[in-house]
Amino acid sequence: MLIKFFIKPRKGVLDPQGRAVSENLRSLGFNNVKDVKVGKYIEVYVEENDREKAVEQAKEMAKKALVNDLIEDYQFEVVED
Amino acid sequence: MLIKFFIKPRKGVLDPQGRAVSENLRSLGFNNVKDVKVGKYIEVYVEENDREKAVEQAKEMAKKALVNDLIEDYQFEVVED
Repeated sequence: MLIKFFIKPRKGVLDPQGRAVSENLRSLGFNNVKDVKVGKYIEVYVEENDREKAVEQAKEMAKKALVNDLIEDYQFEVVED
Repeated sequence: MLIKFFIKPRKGVLDPQGRAVSENLRSLGFNNVKDVKVGKYIEVYVEENDREKAVEQAKEMAKKALVNDLIEDYQFEVVED
């Protein structure tokens, strides 16, 4: 299975990269840009055929290693690889 | 609309962050981890109600500012925000 993690700064947490990208896009003429958040996209390929187990594992991985819960929000999805 | 970009290192491109995360996960007991890729997750909120236009804009943003085509692959999706 492939687990895809989408991690981004929590609302209210300073996001200097997001601000930089936002200003860059506007300077390039994308004037309708309202806000940008920059986070991490992580793909984890696991040898696991049971989707339920992969989901449980994803939550554990996020908690123990991938996500800093104080400053980051995350979502994930599990797909066949 | 909200444009979500999922950017990752191209196949064959060195991904030291991916390797580090992979080793970290295994050292934590996730022994079924085969491979990890670490990339960027970017959310861009645009004032645009026309989905087709947002899709065109997303492609332009990727090309001009967000993705380094030589070393990165990307996908995106456009959703209502």
